[in-house]
Amino acid sequence: MSHNTFGHLFRFTTWGESHGPALGCVVDGCPSGLSLSESDIQPWLDKRRPGQSRHVTQRREPDQVRILSGVFEDERTGGPVTTGAPISLMIENVDQRSKDYSDIRDKWRPGHADFTYDAKYGVRDYRGGGRSSARETAARVAAGAIARKVLGDGIQIRGALVQVGPRRIDPARWDWDAVHQNDFFCPDAETAEAWAEDMDAIRKAGSSVGGLIEVVVSGIPAGWGAPVYGKLDADLASAMMSINAAKAVEIGSGLNAAALRGEDAADEMALDDTGQPRFTSNHNGGVLGGISTGQDLVMRVAIKPTSSIRIDRQTLTKDLQPTTVSTKGRHDPCVAIRGVPVAEAMAALVLADHKLRAAALKA
Amino acid sequence: MSHNTFGHLFRFTTWGESHGPALGCVVDGCPSGLSLSESDIQPWLDKRRPGQSRHVTQRREPDQVRILSGVFEDERTGGPVTTGAPISLMIENVDQRSKDYSDIRDKWRPGHADFTYDAKYGVRDYRGGGRSSARETAARVAAGAIARKVLGDGIQIRGALVQVGPRRIDPARWDWDAVHQNDFFCPDAETAEAWAEDMDAIRKAGSSVGGLIEVVVSGIPAGWGAPVYGKLDADLASAMMSINAAKAVEIGSGLNAAALRGEDAADEMALDDTGQPRFTSNHNGGVLGGISTGQDLVMRVAIKPTSSIRIDRQTLTKDLQPTTVSTKGRHDPCVAIRGVPVAEAMAALVLADHKLRAAALKA
Amino acid sequence: MSHNTFGHLFRFTTWGESHGPALGCVVDGCPSGLSLSESDIQPWLDKRRPGQSRHVTQRREPDQVRILSGVFEDERTGGPVTTGAPISLMIENVDQRSKDYSDIRDKWRPGHADFTYDAKYGVRDYRGGGRSSARETAARVAAGAIARKVLGDGIQIRGALVQVGPRRIDPARWDWDAVHQNDFFCPDAETAEAWAEDMDAIRKAGSSVGGLIEVVVSGIPAGWGAPVYGKLDADLASAMMSINAAKAVEIGSGLNAAALRGEDAADEMALDDTGQPRFTSNHNGGVLGGISTGQDLVMRVAIKPTSSIRIDRQTLTKDLQPTTVSTKGRHDPCVAIRGVPVAEAMAALVLADHKLRAAALKA
Amino acid sequence: MSHNTFGHLFRFTTWGESHGPALGCVVDGCPSGLSLSESDIQPWLDKRRPGQSRHVTQRREPDQVRILSGVFEDERTGGPVTTGAPISLMIENVDQRSKDYSDIRDKWRPGHADFTYDAKYGVRDYRGGGRSSARETAARVAAGAIARKVLGDGIQIRGALVQVGPRRIDPARWDWDAVHQNDFFCPDAETAEAWAEDMDAIRKAGSSVGGLIEVVVSGIPAGWGAPVYGKLDADLASAMMSINAAKAVEIGSGLNAAALRGEDAADEMALDDTGQPRFTSNHNGGVLGGISTGQDLVMRVAIKPTSSIRIDRQTLTKDLQPTTVSTKGRHDPCVAIRGVPVAEAMAALVLADHKLRAAALKA
Repeated sequence: MSHNTFGHLFRFTTWGESHGPALGCVVDGCPSGLSLSESDIQPWLDKRRPGQSRHVTQRREPDQVRILSGVFEDERTGGPVTTGAPISLMIENVDQRSKDYSDIRDKWRPGHADFTYDAKYGVRDYRGGGRSSARETAARVAAGAIARKVLGDGIQIRGALVQVGPRRIDPARWDWDAVHQNDFFCPDAETAEAWAEDMDAIRKAGSSVGGLIEVVVSGIPAGWGAPVYGKLDADLASAMMSINAAKAVEIGSGLNAAALRGEDAADEMALDDTGQPRFTSNHNGGVLGGISTGQDLVMRVAIKPTSSIRIDRQTLTKDLQPTTVSTKGRHDPCVAIRGVPVAEAMAALVLADHKLRAAALKA
Repeated sequence: MSHNTFGHLFRFTTWGESHGPALGCVVDGCPSGLSLSESDIQPWLDKRRPGQSRHVTQRREPDQVRILSGVFEDERTGGPVTTGAPISLMIENVDQRSKDYSDIRDKWRPGHADFTYDAKYGVRDYRGGGRSSARETAARVAAGAIARKVLGDGIQIRGALVQVGPRRIDPARWDWDAVHQNDFFCPDAETAEAWAEDMDAIRKAGSSVGGLIEVVVSGIPAGWGAPVYGKLDADLASAMMSINAAKAVEIGSGLNAAALRGEDAADEMALDDTGQPRFTSNHNGGVLGGISTGQDLVMRVAIKPTSSIRIDRQTLTKDLQPTTVSTKGRHDPCVAIRGVPVAEAMAALVLADHKLRAAALKA
Repeated sequence: MSHNTFGHLFRFTTWGESHGPALGCVVDGCPSGLSLSESDIQPWLDKRRPGQSRHVTQRREPDQVRILSGVFEDERTGGPVTTGAPISLMIENVDQRSKDYSDIRDKWRPGHADFTYDAKYGVRDYRGGGRSSARETAARVAAGAIARKVLGDGIQIRGALVQVGPRRIDPARWDWDAVHQNDFFCPDAETAEAWAEDMDAIRKAGSSVGGLIEVVVSGIPAGWGAPVYGKLDADLASAMMSINAAKAVEIGSGLNAAALRGEDAADEMALDDTGQPRFTSNHNGGVLGGISTGQDLVMRVAIKPTSSIRIDRQTLTKDLQPTTVSTKGRHDPCVAIRGVPVAEAMAALVLADHKLRAAALKA
Repeated sequence: MSHNTFGHLFRFTTWGESHGPALGCVVDGCPSGLSLSESDIQPWLDKRRPGQSRHVTQRREPDQVRILSGVFEDERTGGPVTTGAPISLMIENVDQRSKDYSDIRDKWRPGHADFTYDAKYGVRDYRGGGRSSARETAARVAAGAIARKVLGDGIQIRGALVQVGPRRIDPARWDWDAVHQNDFFCPDAETAEAWAEDMDAIRKAGSSVGGLIEVVVSGIPAGWGAPVYGKLDADLASAMMSINAAKAVEIGSGLNAAALRGEDAADEMALDDTGQPRFTSNHNGGVLGGISTGQDLVMRVAIKPTSSIRIDRQTLTKDLQPTTVSTKGRHDPCVAIRGVPVAEAMAALVLADHKLRAAALKA
């Protein structure tokens, strides 16, 4: 029942603040015998790393991960493999300019967790948001890399940004290759160009904007997940909603399901070329009754605009004095962009857990 | 890590199938000394009960609840109070026409969990959906009534249906009193009338339609919930997504948050008439950083159209023979209607748990 | 984190008071496809049932169990099998003479949980001990019968009483067949006769006596359990100590391990006739580092004398008035006797859980 | 359900191997506002640290702890206080002579977890026992120091060694001050001298010996703990049995309870000088029905002799070749000695958790 642990059988616990000496996580429940070294994790962290385009924060964090436990030389290959012991991962914080934050020490920034942390804990590490900083998500991405190892190569987890502000991609132009060819993880090259212009204006105005992330998972067999309170989609909803700034989660047709009629929403079944069952549509996003159908899992998470903006907003000091606040630090004008690898990681973490949970019932 | 248990400190475990002898739940972790008898639970079950208008299923279930443990006479009042022991609730199934279901014994109904249960378990109680039936939600509503007792009178949990099919209410006409004056829990009397017509046509066509439920909770103090993986909104998302047929969950501005700019999304702070902090808007739906702000908690859950329709859909038999299926039984043409008390109950259950979790940290 | 739930993957939640209408449990996480009917459970309950000899309580409870959910007809055999849904078991209370208990309503009986329940909850179902009654263990035995199904026929769980008061059996005379041929589950026929005399005297004196239960489990493969905080022996210790009146738990050599030297305690390894590894002794009771060795699991639990005796003891009323109390009801003079099937059940329940946990790591 | 996490509300997760770069833990669920720095933790680690007398291992580990997260400057005092965020503690391993271990790389050492880890995981960090090394207990002691902070000064947790090999202390000579005046945490100065002679002989012989640890906790109010499966004594049993080499756990009279008669085992109640309830004896060790009575909590844990001895024992290689093994490394001849601060820490950790659990029910 930890507030900083996610998962049941495959689980991870994160720790660390934005401006502390380091952050990290402990991954527990990982099966033994999986080849694992830092080089399996680093590429995913690099994908999330700040400073990779003008559209994201210019903070410079190398985000180098170090494995402190849980791997050992395999007696056959000599290479490092997981031993079944907990895997401790650590990332040192390097580019912390704590002096930037003295101004907000005593103010509650609108949209941030300043007021609520003070209400709950009575003490708050105000430097860069402390524990509530999106910097915590680096630990999720690192853990997610291990989750991908557990899932194996047969399962593909891919995320994309499908909306920035009011502008949404055209699904007809969806191209997974495009995702790696622009600064937005955008699967629609044309829309990516429009976003670049939108973002320049927003950044110049000192403002920020929200976005919508879609994650698609291929290769999950039918039968993962569980009924009632162990539903795969309920766990994915919790995982996605736990991402900083998330405000909505959709599975399959999502919100649009409310508008449909039964005959249109039904995912009919037929036989594929090999005589195996297939669905002729995927309104349910790959889950029925909380259990995977074998189709692609499809989910979306809406991210609100970054709360740190250069535009003055009205607020209060901790002494209840009205004041205004704006944020001078280096922030993402659209935190949803770097949220894509985080959402992918959370999907991987949920699914690795459910892979183990499904295996348990085959005992 | 049970698939049939929800909650951490205040928790409940449900059991029972649609056409078994009974269904019920065990509520555990309830503080002692709360006055509790069947009459505290029955009204909420009655609200969810089938057969109350032409727009819902005509199945006739009295849904009489019985308390089997966990209460005892209070030595001062003589009335029944909770003792801190687990509270076992049981509801007998009465109107089960199992013979109706022989036709679907060997077919996978589109949109239902038939295929996935077979994939996962290899055996399935096909009568009325068995464990995957929405009948299970009666147990949630019963448990939710106890959760309300834990929360106390200062906290008000109210649900409403805000969309049926493509037709959404006009928020400007929102009237909580109206909710109890139509067959839809609709807060907008004018829209309720339009829905009645819509529904008559849908029912006549043997079809069904989706809907959107909104739940608003007033009276939660600032400081409930927790960071990172214990977020109040993540737990609410999981709770709402666990409801049968749910496909999306929104908190506050929800999906619309993606379209906003930072200066518009910020919930600014000011002082109220008594010199206490107040927010001038509630885009965040009463949660910041996973912790309650003291504002109203606002959430919505999208419910897909009932999968049981009288219109033929293509599917397969368990022997992989193509066939068609339609459902003759007595079903809700819009399951979102009776979902309103269920969504309220789930909100109550999450919040009772978080009330206890918040208290623990004050140790 | 429930106080009334035991286990992680295979888990059960019990409910009910000694003098309520019924007691029961919900077994969750049971794999599907196991044949299960009341007749698989009843024999174990009968073994624990009161009134079977003059040495146990004369309360007459039929302890008829009823399965309310979680089983359905198997399509091949037609017989009932588990479906993967939660299994609700109920046992009605029949022989409750609540009037017997008015005398102890306001007194804290020494050795009982009266004082501590009042301290914790402020309200107490005083009839027969309410929730703290050993009657709750009927639910454990019922759940344990399902755990045995999960474990399968290859795993044998056998309990015996090895000490009553100061008189211990002679291990050299251990005979498993004898266990079923006396009133004490005693594996040493000669000692059983001595106990019968001891017990007659104790019962006549209105006194009671403690005992020591040993449980031996054969057929567990090497590799169940886990390091550090998931240790098989730690989970067994918790399970055994949760039995009413338990005061000590031993694994293998147990307390005597403190007195040994390293060379004597080492369980050396050699090859058996088939060239497989075997241990030449079992001081460790079948567990090393929290993980099963493949040897017999050997554990013992010490049970204190029944606290309900006919001999006056000094105590206080709830109003803090000094008084004396003795118990007139029908009680077990040695509760350890009927504790044998309970201890067996707890071992089965721990092991079924660990079977599933081991399977999960093979994902 | 982690194998490396202990506790429910106040919980900690440990990681690290004996010869990895470091070991540590993440403490989660700690209330905010508690003053905490390394100097609060280091003294307890020093107490457990190797090399402090000739009777313990001569490995030289400074065991310097570092706090990496979860504390921040208090705005009033300026000193560090807990923030409610997870507290990450790290201890670097310094004196690892991994070359010592090549000899045992392919042998299963009797009494160690070598065989079972291989059976479970198929890969094993053989250096110094890897994850199964008692070195992991340093993390427990560090976490235990934080648990003591949660418990506060009113609760006193004291451990002592009461038996080494067959020689037990004389309880009549119990003196808590003596515990700090000998190399054994022995409360009986006379016995400590005899043990010193015993130990010199054992060490000289290359052998080892077991021991019995007693922990006494004063100041716990009545009402902590819970019935059935959340029993305080069951949780203590699990905690104590999770300590490396533990084979038995006793509460109060423990194993001896089996030999008692009801009238002798009853802890009678009377009034103390202030008119408050008191017990006239403590056979139950401060727990009734799983709930604290307000008396001293008394528990004992039996520790088997260190399995690493210089005397040849028969065993097998991983290739199933018979061989012998003896251990040349620097080991504790009686690991129970340094187990005393570990057992204290585990008691503190259980009780901090139960303090929070008790507070939750007062919501």
